[in-house]
Amino acid sequence: MYYIGIDLGGTNIAAGIVDEEGSIIKKCSVPTGRTRASEEIVADMCSLVENLIKDAGINEAELHSIGIGSPGIPDRKNGVIIYNNNLGFRNVPIRELMQKRFNLPVYLENDANCAAIAECVAGAAKNEPYAVVITIGTGIGGGVIIDNKLYTGFNGAGGELGHVVIHMGGEDCTCGRKGCWEAYSSATALIRQTIQAAAENPKSIINRLAEENSGRITAKTAFDAARLGDETAIKVVDQYIEMLAEGLANMINIFQPNVVVLGGGVSKEGENLLAPLREKVRGKSYGAHGVENTRIVAAQLGNDAGIVGAALISKV
Amino acid sequence: MYYIGIDLGGTNIAAGIVDEEGSIIKKCSVPTGRTRASEEIVADMCSLVENLIKDAGINEAELHSIGIGSPGIPDRKNGVIIYNNNLGFRNVPIRELMQKRFNLPVYLENDANCAAIAECVAGAAKNEPYAVVITIGTGIGGGVIIDNKLYTGFNGAGGELGHVVIHMGGEDCTCGRKGCWEAYSSATALIRQTIQAAAENPKSIINRLAEENSGRITAKTAFDAARLGDETAIKVVDQYIEMLAEGLANMINIFQPNVVVLGGGVSKEGENLLAPLREKVRGKSYGAHGVENTRIVAAQLGNDAGIVGAALISKV
Repeated sequence: MYYIGIDLGGTNIAAGIVDEEGSIIKKCSVPTGRTRASEEIVADMCSLVENLIKDAGINEAELHSIGIGSPGIPDRKNGVIIYNNNLGFRNVPIRELMQKRFNLPVYLENDANCAAIAECVAGAAKNEPYAVVITIGTGIGGGVIIDNKLYTGFNGAGGELGHVVIHMGGEDCTCGRKGCWEAYSSATALIRQTIQAAAENPKSIINRLAEENSGRITAKTAFDAARLGDETAIKVVDQYIEMLAEGLANMINIFQPNVVVLGGGVSKEGENLLAPLREKVRGKSYGAHGVENTRIVAAQLGNDAGIVGAALISKV
Repeated sequence: MYYIGIDLGGTNIAAGIVDEEGSIIKKCSVPTGRTRASEEIVADMCSLVENLIKDAGINEAELHSIGIGSPGIPDRKNGVIIYNNNLGFRNVPIRELMQKRFNLPVYLENDANCAAIAECVAGAAKNEPYAVVITIGTGIGGGVIIDNKLYTGFNGAGGELGHVVIHMGGEDCTCGRKGCWEAYSSATALIRQTIQAAAENPKSIINRLAEENSGRITAKTAFDAARLGDETAIKVVDQYIEMLAEGLANMINIFQPNVVVLGGGVSKEGENLLAPLREKVRGKSYGAHGVENTRIVAAQLGNDAGIVGAALISKV
């Protein structure tokens, strides 16, 4: 059987056909046009899927299901996107709309959970019964795998790991609380920290790299400047990893998963990030010296995690 | 069948015979004498159980098992208490020692997890598939029930919910980190906060209540003084509940359990504690307005939770 996955993002709608093992057979994408009415966006999703099936030369009888990953809170049972802030969706009955065109089961899941499903079925957490997948992007997305199944709590809203306060009364978070992990360890937070350090240290190489990049500081800038030996950047990176470690050690003390998988752009720093992170986390983990420790690794599926995870929602 | 539960505390060893429903048929206790050798303590545990069986007039054939709850990290598989700081136990093969006297299976579990098991099988979390049980005492003990089973992670050390940092760089915690939830919301922390407020406010009723209690401030003192209208105490209690709420909202954002059960001495304040706590937690919970909310309730089994939970380890 084949599985269709749709990653409904704020910028692009990406879709793919995925096999049993989580390999993408064919994929494509179109701009979301996120200010449009939900009906238009869903019509594009349907056309995208139709083209995919045609291009891949797959018989509809070989298709198992369509899965959709979207930010926000999904009503999995009724197939409704209750809330998607980026797209302005409120109670969009996306299953019903898709099933007007396709005679297939349609599954819905939160995008961070899709990343966790993808890593669990076909990536860095494959064959690990307990996994915590952290996606570092605009926010911090969390997905928790327990006994090889996605954990979402009694009401389906669990696993909001970015919205765990690590510094009471601290930085404002988009969720309304102060001091959430997301407000310190997301890519957005790293950019804020980098901009501030660069402003306070005019001679820092960060400023030169920003100029060379049309004035833009990204989540990569501090890592790049640190590689060039810039003291300010080295400090920014060290403090960022320290805060990331606080939140990760919290997750390990709670879940003691076989593996923590880090995804999102920042995770592409690889061992530059992971080696110091592991050392800091170890010093913060409870009872870390008496038992086997959680492994901390980078995500393997990159940008495809959204498609693969959406395709395989029904697997976990 | 009947189940024997032993709550191996730093002050007393309490044991009881428990039925299928978690009701205690008979119980008794002896002082632990915690400076003694582990062999002597285990010998007392055996005598306690023998007397219990005799006094209850139960046939050994009707006994299912013996369960032991102890602080620290248990090696469940091998029946060894790896580490118990209070008793100075290191790698005590308690199953082997007990089985020299009793031809019964012997189960081991951490004491905070026993409290969770007890509330899950016979208390405030009965029939709730997802529960988080928080015991507020010297520290903050956590027990997590997922799909009606105790959750302990891949290495058995999970659920250390008190050792989640809620204020980076904050109060020292016994675990070596700074800013753990336990360092703000345990009974020990509340006493520290009360002592400090009383010292800064000599006219506070807290000081009078302490004098009437041989100079001792307990976790109850601030609540008692607040009931008498003392402004300092009202502020201590409000700030304490605020910090407790930060940690609880974290747990809800992570687990979204059907119920959070609060146990330990402080929970005996009942609605004085729970009503403001629920309000504060609601304001801090992610997406609390879009889905059914976690209930927050007091534990039902009180001091018996240790015995009942130990007895029923094999049930979850």
